[in-house]
Amino acid sequence: MDTQKQFQSKIKTIEWVDNYSRMVDQTVIPYEYKFVNITNGEDMYDAIKTMIVRGAPAIGIAGAHGVVLFAQALAKEIPSVSDFKSELIKKAQYMKTSRPTAVNLMWACEKQIEIIKKSESDIRGIVNELKENAIRLENEDIEINKKIGDYGSQVVPKGATILTHCNAGALATVGYGTALGVVRSAYAKDNTIQVFADETRPRQQGARITTFELTMDGIPVTLITDGMCSYFMKKGMIDMVVVGADRIASNGDTANKIGTYTVAISAKYHNVPFYIAAPLSTIDTSIKSGDEIPIEERSHEEVTHINGKRICAEGVKVINPGFDVTPHELITGIITEKGILKPDYNKSIAEAFGI
Amino acid sequence: MDTQKQFQSKIKTIEWVDNYSRMVDQTVIPYEYKFVNITNGEDMYDAIKTMIVRGAPAIGIAGAHGVVLFAQALAKEIPSVSDFKSELIKKAQYMKTSRPTAVNLMWACEKQIEIIKKSESDIRGIVNELKENAIRLENEDIEINKKIGDYGSQVVPKGATILTHCNAGALATVGYGTALGVVRSAYAKDNTIQVFADETRPRQQGARITTFELTMDGIPVTLITDGMCSYFMKKGMIDMVVVGADRIASNGDTANKIGTYTVAISAKYHNVPFYIAAPLSTIDTSIKSGDEIPIEERSHEEVTHINGKRICAEGVKVINPGFDVTPHELITGIITEKGILKPDYNKSIAEAFGI
Repeated sequence: MDTQKQFQSKIKTIEWVDNYSRMVDQTVIPYEYKFVNITNGEDMYDAIKTMIVRGAPAIGIAGAHGVVLFAQALAKEIPSVSDFKSELIKKAQYMKTSRPTAVNLMWACEKQIEIIKKSESDIRGIVNELKENAIRLENEDIEINKKIGDYGSQVVPKGATILTHCNAGALATVGYGTALGVVRSAYAKDNTIQVFADETRPRQQGARITTFELTMDGIPVTLITDGMCSYFMKKGMIDMVVVGADRIASNGDTANKIGTYTVAISAKYHNVPFYIAAPLSTIDTSIKSGDEIPIEERSHEEVTHINGKRICAEGVKVINPGFDVTPHELITGIITEKGILKPDYNKSIAEAFGI
Repeated sequence: MDTQKQFQSKIKTIEWVDNYSRMVDQTVIPYEYKFVNITNGEDMYDAIKTMIVRGAPAIGIAGAHGVVLFAQALAKEIPSVSDFKSELIKKAQYMKTSRPTAVNLMWACEKQIEIIKKSESDIRGIVNELKENAIRLENEDIEINKKIGDYGSQVVPKGATILTHCNAGALATVGYGTALGVVRSAYAKDNTIQVFADETRPRQQGARITTFELTMDGIPVTLITDGMCSYFMKKGMIDMVVVGADRIASNGDTANKIGTYTVAISAKYHNVPFYIAAPLSTIDTSIKSGDEIPIEERSHEEVTHINGKRICAEGVKVINPGFDVTPHELITGIITEKGILKPDYNKSIAEAFGI
């Protein structure tokens, strides 16, 4: 398969190049593996919204790049530094609204806003500082994921079968991945481990993206439909679950792709350990519990159509929440770059943040 | 939508006509609503195997029809009554093997085998007795489903939202349906009830067939993906679950479409009542528990392709169990034509069978 051959997990999923952002177009995987160049802020907003770039850590970087793109454009239009700053902060706030659930987007835009506010440079200097910060966040993302992978691999049993939902891989981050970072690190130490990937309807990121990533790295992967997880858990064929996260509250409640909560309930019922793998930037210490996490409602066509073809009767109603919240009591541990946080999460999260 | 307009739930899904079996082709719903005439036993075997006809009660009738088709053909070839009987019993045993999980198929073929064994008629007479029995089973199926509907409707709360998985409707039976029979009877009494339909990957019978059936009857239906059930249960939006069954063991353990067990676990976690709706012919009193139910492993392409298009990377492994077993402890009640069986199922099932 030519598309798959083009994939190299060492290439960055999203990267700042000269004066634009280059990203893998995730809407066409596994049929095509191609890059898209995003050259202005509005296009970045749309790329996030339409999921050309997706995955909480990756859209964080996309948001940071988007602010640089807006800065480059405004620099040509606005001569006054203070006007430039106030206009750019508005654009950065706007960039945050491209998707509501994953907090990494807000976190990365806020990092840029801090720079805008604090900088004492001229306009050109501010643009450069924002660009440098975006590139620093990119590189940090990979380093963080490798740490997550290392910590996570310590709780992967020898020869384990790891179930994952959606895609929290190299293609959801700048590289290496969070949940699939754990898989990669574990596989490097023990090549008898394997992965079961939930299809992850409606958008099938598990089928489309996770199977693509893992087959390319030669890591054995079995595709299952979302309803099958309990069947395999009952048979003792799943040793642990590791998934990513879009936002984690102070008490450990975790928003992730719709369907994650169902997997977590099933894991609890079968006494299968259920881990979240995510950078600390996914933790939103401003909220107490998952009840405060906004859940994005997405297009109905994601449910009623697959590859452009309707799969149901006309006249049917649809509700399409993009995420669900797994309550902290179902989570065995949260694997971060500072180690594996364990319950009581209010305590372990506060400690990780030094608060 | 022309296809949908053609559907009338009063038409039999499968019906004996003159000297052949006429059935709705369920592989093309909701794109087309058309009938297929099956005129010989081998074609019936294939129609069951390829799911032109599906749904446990419907494939029971299909099996009974298949035996008549084999009888008609053998009647032209074999002059001796005893040779005819022994050859036809072999064909009836073979017909049972077209699918392994739904016990109604075995039950209906056994009913025909009893007639073959006991009949004192000539060959023509035996063929007529088998035909009459097949038509009797057809009519009984609808009567049984209406009784299931009546009993089941008594436990549907006013204004309830009922979640169902797969299709246990008119199109899974000769008519009216089991789980959707409960919905129809409840809706006739209270038109404020509504249905949430799980898509039911891999073959999407919920999306394709359940939404088709219910929209045609004007019963409000919301399509959700399989992973979403827990999200809606947590929100208090699901009042009960009703699903069909392919085989029920003496202790109440129930095989049904893959994914049912996951829904049942989630229902238990959220204290949502979980009911099975099935005729007594679905209960296999010869087995003690669900461990003895054979689970059909189906084609990998059902998981890797949708509408003929691949949805995942090449080189991925697949396991595709067609069914799972929900243990009796997750089942609130089994709605049958003799009332709602409650735990202890060993006792209530034995009583229903008078054993």
